[in-house]
Amino acid sequence: RRTGDPEVVYGAGKTPAQVVAILRALHERHPDRAVLATRLGEDARQAVAEQLPEADLDPVARTAVLGPLPEPSGSVLVVGAGTSDAPVVREALVTARVHGARAGTVLDVGVAGLHRLLAVREELDAADCLVVVAGMEGALPSVVAGLVGVPLVAVPTSVGYGASFEGLAALLAMLNSCAPGVVVVNIDNGYGAAVHAARVARAAHR
Amino acid sequence: RRTGDPEVVYGAGKTPAQVVAILRALHERHPDRAVLATRLGEDARQAVAEQLPEADLDPVARTAVLGPLPEPSGSVLVVGAGTSDAPVVREALVTARVHGARAGTVLDVGVAGLHRLLAVREELDAADCLVVVAGMEGALPSVVAGLVGVPLVAVPTSVGYGASFEGLAALLAMLNSCAPGVVVVNIDNGYGAAVHAARVARAAHR
Amino acid sequence: RRTGDPEVVYGAGKTPAQVVAILRALHERHPDRAVLATRLGEDARQAVAEQLPEADLDPVARTAVLGPLPEPSGSVLVVGAGTSDAPVVREALVTARVHGARAGTVLDVGVAGLHRLLAVREELDAADCLVVVAGMEGALPSVVAGLVGVPLVAVPTSVGYGASFEGLAALLAMLNSCAPGVVVVNIDNGYGAAVHAARVARAAHR
Amino acid sequence: RRTGDPEVVYGAGKTPAQVVAILRALHERHPDRAVLATRLGEDARQAVAEQLPEADLDPVARTAVLGPLPEPSGSVLVVGAGTSDAPVVREALVTARVHGARAGTVLDVGVAGLHRLLAVREELDAADCLVVVAGMEGALPSVVAGLVGVPLVAVPTSVGYGASFEGLAALLAMLNSCAPGVVVVNIDNGYGAAVHAARVARAAHR
Amino acid sequence: RRTGDPEVVYGAGKTPAQVVAILRALHERHPDRAVLATRLGEDARQAVAEQLPEADLDPVARTAVLGPLPEPSGSVLVVGAGTSDAPVVREALVTARVHGARAGTVLDVGVAGLHRLLAVREELDAADCLVVVAGMEGALPSVVAGLVGVPLVAVPTSVGYGASFEGLAALLAMLNSCAPGVVVVNIDNGYGAAVHAARVARAAHR
Amino acid sequence: RRTGDPEVVYGAGKTPAQVVAILRALHERHPDRAVLATRLGEDARQAVAEQLPEADLDPVARTAVLGPLPEPSGSVLVVGAGTSDAPVVREALVTARVHGARAGTVLDVGVAGLHRLLAVREELDAADCLVVVAGMEGALPSVVAGLVGVPLVAVPTSVGYGASFEGLAALLAMLNSCAPGVVVVNIDNGYGAAVHAARVARAAHR
Amino acid sequence: RRTGDPEVVYGAGKTPAQVVAILRALHERHPDRAVLATRLGEDARQAVAEQLPEADLDPVARTAVLGPLPEPSGSVLVVGAGTSDAPVVREALVTARVHGARAGTVLDVGVAGLHRLLAVREELDAADCLVVVAGMEGALPSVVAGLVGVPLVAVPTSVGYGASFEGLAALLAMLNSCAPGVVVVNIDNGYGAAVHAARVARAAHR
Amino acid sequence: RRTGDPEVVYGAGKTPAQVVAILRALHERHPDRAVLATRLGEDARQAVAEQLPEADLDPVARTAVLGPLPEPSGSVLVVGAGTSDAPVVREALVTARVHGARAGTVLDVGVAGLHRLLAVREELDAADCLVVVAGMEGALPSVVAGLVGVPLVAVPTSVGYGASFEGLAALLAMLNSCAPGVVVVNIDNGYGAAVHAARVARAAHR
Ligand SMILES: Nc1ncnc2c1ncn2[C@@H]1O[C@H](COP(=O)(O)O)[C@@H](O)[C@H]1O
Ligand SMILES: Nc1ncnc2c1ncn2[C@@H]1O[C@H](COP(=O)(O)O)[C@@H](O)[C@H]1O
Ligand SMILES: Nc1ncnc2c1ncn2[C@@H]1O[C@H](COP(=O)(O)O)[C@@H](O)[C@H]1O
Ligand SMILES: Nc1ncnc2c1ncn2[C@@H]1O[C@H](COP(=O)(O)O)[C@@H](O)[C@H]1O
Ligand SMILES: [Mg+2]
Ligand SMILES: [Mg+2]
Ligand SMILES: [Mg+2]
Ligand SMILES: [Mg+2]
Ligand SMILES: [Mg+2]
Ligand SMILES: [Mg+2]
Ligand SMILES: [Mg+2]
Ligand SMILES: [Mg+2]
Repeated sequence: RRTGDPEVVYGAGKTPAQVVAILRALHERHPDRAVLATRLGEDARQAVAEQLPEADLDPVARTAVLGPLPEPSGSVLVVGAGTSDAPVVREALVTARVHGARAGTVLDVGVAGLHRLLAVREELDAADCLVVVAGMEGALPSVVAGLVGVPLVAVPTSVGYGASFEGLAALLAMLNSCAPGVVVVNIDNGYGAAVHAARVARAAHR
Repeated sequence: RRTGDPEVVYGAGKTPAQVVAILRALHERHPDRAVLATRLGEDARQAVAEQLPEADLDPVARTAVLGPLPEPSGSVLVVGAGTSDAPVVREALVTARVHGARAGTVLDVGVAGLHRLLAVREELDAADCLVVVAGMEGALPSVVAGLVGVPLVAVPTSVGYGASFEGLAALLAMLNSCAPGVVVVNIDNGYGAAVHAARVARAAHR
Repeated sequence: RRTGDPEVVYGAGKTPAQVVAILRALHERHPDRAVLATRLGEDARQAVAEQLPEADLDPVARTAVLGPLPEPSGSVLVVGAGTSDAPVVREALVTARVHGARAGTVLDVGVAGLHRLLAVREELDAADCLVVVAGMEGALPSVVAGLVGVPLVAVPTSVGYGASFEGLAALLAMLNSCAPGVVVVNIDNGYGAAVHAARVARAAHR
Repeated sequence: RRTGDPEVVYGAGKTPAQVVAILRALHERHPDRAVLATRLGEDARQAVAEQLPEADLDPVARTAVLGPLPEPSGSVLVVGAGTSDAPVVREALVTARVHGARAGTVLDVGVAGLHRLLAVREELDAADCLVVVAGMEGALPSVVAGLVGVPLVAVPTSVGYGASFEGLAALLAMLNSCAPGVVVVNIDNGYGAAVHAARVARAAHR
Repeated sequence: RRTGDPEVVYGAGKTPAQVVAILRALHERHPDRAVLATRLGEDARQAVAEQLPEADLDPVARTAVLGPLPEPSGSVLVVGAGTSDAPVVREALVTARVHGARAGTVLDVGVAGLHRLLAVREELDAADCLVVVAGMEGALPSVVAGLVGVPLVAVPTSVGYGASFEGLAALLAMLNSCAPGVVVVNIDNGYGAAVHAARVARAAHR
Repeated sequence: RRTGDPEVVYGAGKTPAQVVAILRALHERHPDRAVLATRLGEDARQAVAEQLPEADLDPVARTAVLGPLPEPSGSVLVVGAGTSDAPVVREALVTARVHGARAGTVLDVGVAGLHRLLAVREELDAADCLVVVAGMEGALPSVVAGLVGVPLVAVPTSVGYGASFEGLAALLAMLNSCAPGVVVVNIDNGYGAAVHAARVARAAHR
Repeated sequence: RRTGDPEVVYGAGKTPAQVVAILRALHERHPDRAVLATRLGEDARQAVAEQLPEADLDPVARTAVLGPLPEPSGSVLVVGAGTSDAPVVREALVTARVHGARAGTVLDVGVAGLHRLLAVREELDAADCLVVVAGMEGALPSVVAGLVGVPLVAVPTSVGYGASFEGLAALLAMLNSCAPGVVVVNIDNGYGAAVHAARVARAAHR
Repeated sequence: RRTGDPEVVYGAGKTPAQVVAILRALHERHPDRAVLATRLGEDARQAVAEQLPEADLDPVARTAVLGPLPEPSGSVLVVGAGTSDAPVVREALVTARVHGARAGTVLDVGVAGLHRLLAVREELDAADCLVVVAGMEGALPSVVAGLVGVPLVAVPTSVGYGASFEGLAALLAMLNSCAPGVVVVNIDNGYGAAVHAARVARAAHR
């Protein structure tokens, strides 16, 4: 890759056999680097488990990682508003690690229960880059960005119903954040947010 | 009015002369009650000032009130996220008073500066009904509704640009609030929110 | 809960086992209070029926209640436009009771058959708060709010097809009600409407 | 015209001189028939008044009629929800007459004041075709269509603000009417509704 | 029914047992009149076939009719653009007959093959009311309304893909028809169009 | 230009002085080729008329051409539905000529008056590429594409009101054309359609 | 066909039996010409394979061709951005051949890997017409149209998630291309693009 | 500011007098730091020029800066697709400098002229963070992100017409970028993009 990033397989719309074959081929080319597959359905994960037993599978993130993780440099903290946002939170977590950052998560710190959020403020402040994941009204990034000056990527999720319009409400909210410096990715795109966050975190420790 | 509410003139799309004439007629019919006019442009407010000098004009709210306010009962607190939300905040304030509630405002308590909001928590808790006004990402009602259990009406405003789509982003956010019990009115509709809030507040002190 | 409300489990996206476990845990913490679970699919309701036989299940509302209801105070009346709106009507009914209000329903009083609505006018007037549920063109709240001055929460439902756009038509109609004081919640959100209505009703009888 | 209708000039986007010239030319071709011009701005109406003094101008409808009206046959009743709907109501009125029907109007019978509507029920029943005009939530056609079985054309208007989206809310409401047989035209299209209504009315008296 | 129309059961969202029970009850109340059920799935149609063998089933229209059709008066012609529009065309056909009009269909006369349409022009002209059904770009009503001056109801269908947005493209096209007097109903609403058309047709032969 | 096309100045958002300066500079670089400027307001056209008197101005198309037109090869026919579509029709006409095609126009051949269209059928058939311009319901391209097999580019215009949504209705209609091979450009983009059409026409005569 | 094109069966919404019957009938009428069927599901393709063994099936394109291809004239090159766009790419490929052009494909030349695109520049330049297929942000047509002056049809695909809104993002991007002369078809409409492209290609070699 | 950022005045909707007063007050509080005002109309800029002559005004960016810029650390490069994007490009440039980064611009490197972009590739690679600004189809960020691995913020602009829907097309395109790690801000929000970019750039040089 011209951009220096690891190879990533986007699993949606691929057969289990295709996923296994691509993962294996990429791994053989560079056995010393991690290869990541995202958006793996249950079938694909089972095929990987059987045919690539050394792969590291995450059923919540729906990811598989093959090959050793890079030496981490810089830290990404992934913050999730609700329990239903877990798949996106973990996709970001795994992706950040594969892209060379140390990474952790803080969960269930929605805006309707501020004390939980205020309790982790120092943890937020200590990260090199934050990924803030929220569905429904998508208010969490504004609140976090009002607390700390750390670079912050907002991820809207499709969690919600009715006038959430599959994540559109959260997406629009995040794009209109009254807190300065909030940047946004596509609905449910934990992967893209973490690629950016890992680059930012690594650069801070070069 | 069958519903017991005062008469209200919606000024948008009416000529200054029409506004003055309707206000005068309604006032003459019931000189002991307040009549409210909303959405008055500068021309209409000037015509009212000249021809109905006893009217109480509010240039920010763009309202006029003619006749004595009712004896207040119960309290409405109108909370505004930003300075640009002031016209909607004050339309709600004036409307609540005309509809029989005691009413006050708390301004500039946006979600990107939580300490300001936390500082007024007791004031929020003491109201019989809250009207929470916010534009852009419309996150304030969720945060307030997570702090106190008081009935709360959210008002999205058209403040913002680009993907705020003239208040749509804030409206969707409020409809998807993760805090239970948040109810919503049309974009910029401080009037409607205050009618509901005043009814709730008065009922609490019957 | 800081807001004084009962605990509520949102069943959508949770496994039957998760629903049962959370209900049990919350119930054990406060056996003297009701715990509510909403949006339970058939599987979840069956699991609750088997493993928590003392729970009160409502197959139309898709709810389960565990523990004793609070002593009711104040009254909520839930008004439904059509038979297809029943799940939302009953979700509101159960929620209002769990949140401490007396609650009842009036069904099938759509705007295309006014006599049915006019026949229950006194019942409408006697409530402390109304929840008005309608799909398709969502006209019922305007008509009801023109008849009585009681605080009123409108709930659009996803009932309809084509240009109803899954409840969007009803939502927009309700937000634009020409009757003053109509407040609105998300599409199909009987729960949120009833939380607000129960608070209003209880406050009227403190 | 192959369809037997009178000639109509759509004034929007035409200069006053163009409007006058087209009206004159059409009138000279058939001096025994009425020619209609719609959507005339103030300038165009003034030019017509000066240069075609025999034309019949309606400043509310923004129309001009040149030549004798046809002998009327059948009756169209145009029903308007609010005072701001007047331009559309009158455009329909004038158009119906030019297209050969007897026509009248009933105004200010919004759904939030049902008694006004119920008071004119016999008038509604006596028409051959109804044109029902409403903005904001657009609920009036459903209520009228529930009262009488007369063919009914609904006209949404752009009256409203915020989530009315320039008449979209009313348009969607009317398309989703729960009353059977409601047909709809474009936002503010009093002209189109009246062309249909006049055809229906005339056919009923052939 | 206050409006004089027959009773109609909307089958969507009802169980086969419910459909059978309602049809039977309505039929017993007025055995001399037709009762119509629409939007019946295969299960519901089979239940009707078995338990109400005297019912008249139409698998394309997805309707059932129980009881004798009224004496027809006036004629409705249902015109369909493409073969995929057949369910909507036939729903309109059956509905028109149940509502007291003589009714027939003309199929596959899309705008991309004008000769087929021009060949039936006299048939179009002879009807008392036309129902014109089209999906995709929804152009057919404009073309037909340019050929004949008969009252015309346009029905957009959800036939199409991509930017047809489930019938929205056809709906918007029909609302913007450049041919005067085209009125429109909801997407796929053959029923509503035919109720209006039958009223118009009957009135023309009173 | 790498693509072999002439230089084109997009006038919208440029000052008259800027337009004149760019036109002059481009013309001086290649005095033997035509330079085109589009979307020129009245001010810009007047500045060009005064300072570049040899420029060829078209007030309807809002264009200016400086330098000799190329030797034409192949023919483009621009077909317009209504008189209000004239600016787009002429922008296409001028653009096609500057891009090396012979070009002409056929006007006012809307779908609601088919005879006018059928009368020019041979002219349509004789062109190497058609540009078909229509607003409102945008039906004309489907009808033309059903008559002849010539390559055809459809241009939706913003002519219309209400549910035309500034040309969206026509755009969607054209994208969903039931006639095969209709390709579409942006709303009001006569320029883009003609660039494509001229390339197609020239290629047919190489 | 009046337009000179081959007959095409649109398979979506047709039963396997219907597809086989129509293909057979069309083939029998003109055994010397190719008949094309598109959008065939697995069942339909299997039925064709069994009952029309001489048909040429393409499982990726989801097409069947019966009868001999026409003698090709002119060349169409179909360019695809990503592997998920393959079904649309191949639908275009097969369609172009059935409509009388020589056709080939270039795959996986997305804008995020420009070198792959630059490497095939001469191939792009040699075609008579390009069909450029891309999902997600739909940027490929702009880049290709900046490289070569060949007539180019852009096809947005529904590949993507979240804010791609089933291909809407790519469609809008292509309609707004800053490269002159890009024309666009409906989402996933490889067929329509290829009909236009084949006409253009054939005309260039007459 | 809790987040360590400079104070910023959002000029839209403020009177010139208000802008001057706020700038002066903020400057007096911290004369050693820069204060920034954005979205200043011509009137506001003139008032600032007269009353705060030491302010640094940028008429293209529509900004004013009062007080010394911070010592720069790290570099931001702002890349613009077209000349009409200049106001957003310069708003980003000024903001990045006020927020402590070295900053420069590269202009007119749209995707339809790749050579211009390829020529500055090393400059792109040398930045600590890129801000990529584009209107219309918004394709530039994908192309840049395919060339270099530098953290990149995309800014859609409202430049375009018709189906650009005031920047929506570009916004959606950027959210769906097929290049990994592209993050996005609101339409025309050069300010927000630069706040994020400056934080990233400064962190890389701590
Ligand atoms: N600011 C406002 N927003 C929405 N509705 C309003 C507002 N002010 C007044 N109204 C409503 O408009 C009605 C009066 O309308 P009108 O008769 O046109 O003056 C009042 O009874 C209120 O229901
Ligand atoms: N108010 C109106 N709304 C919609 N269409 C109209 C209206 N007035 C006239 N028209 C149509 O516009 C046609 C005349 O258009 P024009 O030739 O541009 O004047 C008439 O034949 C009518 O079909
Ligand atoms: N009317 C138009 N609509 C769309 N694009 C245009 C138009 N006129 C010119 N253009 C494009 O704008 C480019 C010039 O833009 P500029 O450098 O801003 O003048 C030309 O190369 C064309 O691609
Ligand atoms: N151009 C801009 N776009 C978006 N937000 C801005 C812009 N300029 C300033 N802001 C934000 O607006 C806040 C100041 O708003 P105000 O107090 O109304 O002047 C600043 O702290 C920034 O967060
Ligand atoms: Mg959330
Ligand atoms: Mg706000
Ligand atoms: Mg309903
Ligand atoms: Mg109304
Ligand atoms: Mg069709
Ligand atoms: Mg047109
Ligand atoms: Mg792509
Ligand atoms: Mg651009």
